[in-house]
Amino acid sequence: MTKDHEPFHFLFNPRSVAVIGASANPLKMGHQCLLSLQGSAFPGPLYPIHPREKEILGMRAYPSLNHVPDEVDLAMMVAPAEEVIPALQACQKKGVRGAVIITAGFKEAEGPGGRKIQEDMAALANRAGIKIIGPNTFGMVNVHGRLNASFTPIFSRLKPGPISVLSQSGGVSHLIAYQAIDEGVGLGKVVGLGNRCNVEFSDLLPFLGEDGQTKSIILFIEGVDHPRALVAAVRDVVARKPVVAMKAGRSAASLNAARSHTGTMAGRFEVYEASLKQAGAIVVRDPSELLDVAKILALLPPPSGRGVAVMSLQAGPGILLTDAVVRHGLRMAAFSSRTQEKLNRLLPPLTIRTNPVDMAFARNEESFEGTVKLILEDEDVDALIIFLLHHPFMTPRRIAPAVLSQRQLSGKPILLCANSPRGLIEEEIAELEEQGIPVYSLPERAVRSLSALVEYGESRRKSKGEGQMIGMGRK
Amino acid sequence: MTKDHEPFHFLFNPRSVAVIGASANPLKMGHQCLLSLQGSAFPGPLYPIHPREKEILGMRAYPSLNHVPDEVDLAMMVAPAEEVIPALQACQKKGVRGAVIITAGFKEAEGPGGRKIQEDMAALANRAGIKIIGPNTFGMVNVHGRLNASFTPIFSRLKPGPISVLSQSGGVSHLIAYQAIDEGVGLGKVVGLGNRCNVEFSDLLPFLGEDGQTKSIILFIEGVDHPRALVAAVRDVVARKPVVAMKAGRSAASLNAARSHTGTMAGRFEVYEASLKQAGAIVVRDPSELLDVAKILALLPPPSGRGVAVMSLQAGPGILLTDAVVRHGLRMAAFSSRTQEKLNRLLPPLTIRTNPVDMAFARNEESFEGTVKLILEDEDVDALIIFLLHHPFMTPRRIAPAVLSQRQLSGKPILLCANSPRGLIEEEIAELEEQGIPVYSLPERAVRSLSALVEYGESRRKSKGEGQMIGMGRK
Repeated sequence: MTKDHEPFHFLFNPRSVAVIGASANPLKMGHQCLLSLQGSAFPGPLYPIHPREKEILGMRAYPSLNHVPDEVDLAMMVAPAEEVIPALQACQKKGVRGAVIITAGFKEAEGPGGRKIQEDMAALANRAGIKIIGPNTFGMVNVHGRLNASFTPIFSRLKPGPISVLSQSGGVSHLIAYQAIDEGVGLGKVVGLGNRCNVEFSDLLPFLGEDGQTKSIILFIEGVDHPRALVAAVRDVVARKPVVAMKAGRSAASLNAARSHTGTMAGRFEVYEASLKQAGAIVVRDPSELLDVAKILALLPPPSGRGVAVMSLQAGPGILLTDAVVRHGLRMAAFSSRTQEKLNRLLPPLTIRTNPVDMAFARNEESFEGTVKLILEDEDVDALIIFLLHHPFMTPRRIAPAVLSQRQLSGKPILLCANSPRGLIEEEIAELEEQGIPVYSLPERAVRSLSALVEYGESRRKSKGEGQMIGMGRK
Repeated sequence: MTKDHEPFHFLFNPRSVAVIGASANPLKMGHQCLLSLQGSAFPGPLYPIHPREKEILGMRAYPSLNHVPDEVDLAMMVAPAEEVIPALQACQKKGVRGAVIITAGFKEAEGPGGRKIQEDMAALANRAGIKIIGPNTFGMVNVHGRLNASFTPIFSRLKPGPISVLSQSGGVSHLIAYQAIDEGVGLGKVVGLGNRCNVEFSDLLPFLGEDGQTKSIILFIEGVDHPRALVAAVRDVVARKPVVAMKAGRSAASLNAARSHTGTMAGRFEVYEASLKQAGAIVVRDPSELLDVAKILALLPPPSGRGVAVMSLQAGPGILLTDAVVRHGLRMAAFSSRTQEKLNRLLPPLTIRTNPVDMAFARNEESFEGTVKLILEDEDVDALIIFLLHHPFMTPRRIAPAVLSQRQLSGKPILLCANSPRGLIEEEIAELEEQGIPVYSLPERAVRSLSALVEYGESRRKSKGEGQMIGMGRK
């Protein structure tokens, strides 16, 4: 950890947390925050701050931060807007290192009052060395650290994993985290940046770049004051870790037209997207793609080309996958005549032995593994997608040994597209993903994710090529 | 029921079912079919046919169809290909009305042998008055009739509802049915047409058009011998019920290129899509859209225009919905100055009171219902989408009374976009959908579905307009 990152280390890994504005009333945010911290089994002490209550949710409460007998590293604030500055002063006095300010009604509010308070907050926090997440945020979660510092107790269900999220929208953070909970995808840090009082995308990106628990990063951007700093931070971090980004407000032009405004915002949207892409981020346009793409980026190295092979046990889904491969600018690999001859010998006549391969009538383990092996050995194949429909005879676990041993031999990326009603194969999917085989439920999602991985690889190769050329020029 | 439809009535509503090729071995399809029939609690008698077994799964087995003491309306066949013709002859003798032939290896097999057998099957079945689903199919389900005549026992989990499915791909039928099971969407008839021996899309479409339990129809088409008959049948049924269709094999050109074939298939894809659309079907390009679109078509009448209002409790998702509205060719409604003045009086300053409306800081029932009322009263608003993120304070049930009473008053379509981890609001969603409020988990899915509903309305109005003009010309 470099010295620059020390304050963020304390923010995400506090030894203790106080909640200023804690409440015994379950309908209050100050109560939900305590439930979140408890529910995530935070390992350090928790200090509810309340003027009168002696105990909340079985925890001893204190009338002020000053009354807490031990050190407090992180303060969560759900107090009214007018109490935030005094609370920050109390934090400074207590030596607090980080704050999560849920309270809203500052810079985003109408009139200059809120903006002024927020500037004062930032100045105070900067003097005190306090890093603030927010204000106007749902909070943040460090899943590995068992710290659910948010007003959403259900985030305590998140399982630890390699994907971190920086989002300006609390709503979109929830969409991503709920998807991760449902699909068993592990997350690292999930941060609602809110009004970005003194912590910006460009502050946290370098920290996540060095964070050993983060392998890929999701950005959801509404708009920042200094887009160049954001883009520069993305460019730096992408050299170490992949980033998938989305900018909201594409149709701002239409919005603004409806509101009789000018169309300048729309231009900014295009500029954001182009700059982020040029900096090496994968740019997506639908929020549900963010987690899918971040998952493949965290689990797989990029393939060396665009040639895709498809294997299925039903013809229909094989055709869907093929359509998606072409639609996303990838290419169906053309098997060499040598591969084709071997496949023709291995598989019975009722199977489709060209790409996409439909194994319909050859459902035994030996011919399955033999087919995977032959396909991966073909020089035109850069990646393999296997489609599996849940049936009592056919589950991911049955094909896992063949897939894993052949992946080991070839090193080429393999994805599984496995569709099933809920509650049947989740555990088997988790096992495969732990072994580095990403699993998607639908053809479109699998291929979209693979195309992002290809794009990331091409972008890195181009960037390295340019780097080498610059290096050569300097000799 | 017209006379033409009587044979199909018996096919989907048999009084009894025999399984030819029944098996006591759980790894055999003939066993899975029995599990399906039992699991769906089929109300009539079931007759496993097996040369030696006396009893399978607690049911008395018979050595041949001829030994069954009572009438048999439907026969499921999982016997080897060479035994299918003799089995059909036995069906003819027994007076069987319908058959589901799961057995594969006919027309789709290499060489002319399979095609010949299938032609013989069709001739025999036509003489005997037997309607055949298949061969080479997973089977079919009549959910309302508690008839799971498929090799997939889990289809017995389907709940009855207004959407029927005709699919040439068993794999895609499974994708749709599994999605329906997970999302609690009710289905009517689900038919895997397979090789379409003597029952085609164009035979079943008129039947579904008159079927009182079907309100919208999903078609998944790989390719038919007589596309004009298909298109004519779609045109006829669309006058009574909406149809959503997808044609597979879009990238046939690329496929064929890889296989050094000509590009004729690709042209046929475009022709299929254009003809289906012209006939009045909603054409989609991703299989996951089929169920979403069929649901809205079954639940809602089309709005009278393209003006959409969006309401949310978080700014981010409101922006996502707005982006999606514009992307799908709909239009964000511009509130009249009268609506705007009333909204400004009703909602506090911290809310966004233009379209999309963000109620963030006005989360009480009165201002929520008042806002819904004002929006629906605006003349430029043709439909309303409400976004709701699950939180302990905010669930679909809490807003349901306001939404339902205002929908009652205005008659304009309302959609809910409700996002939550699984297992929390499924029951509340089902309640709302029963009341005619379709619910989608993601902004993209909600808006895509609404745009299909708008397209259906415009297509019907255009078609009726043309009909009236023809009528006028005849005077």
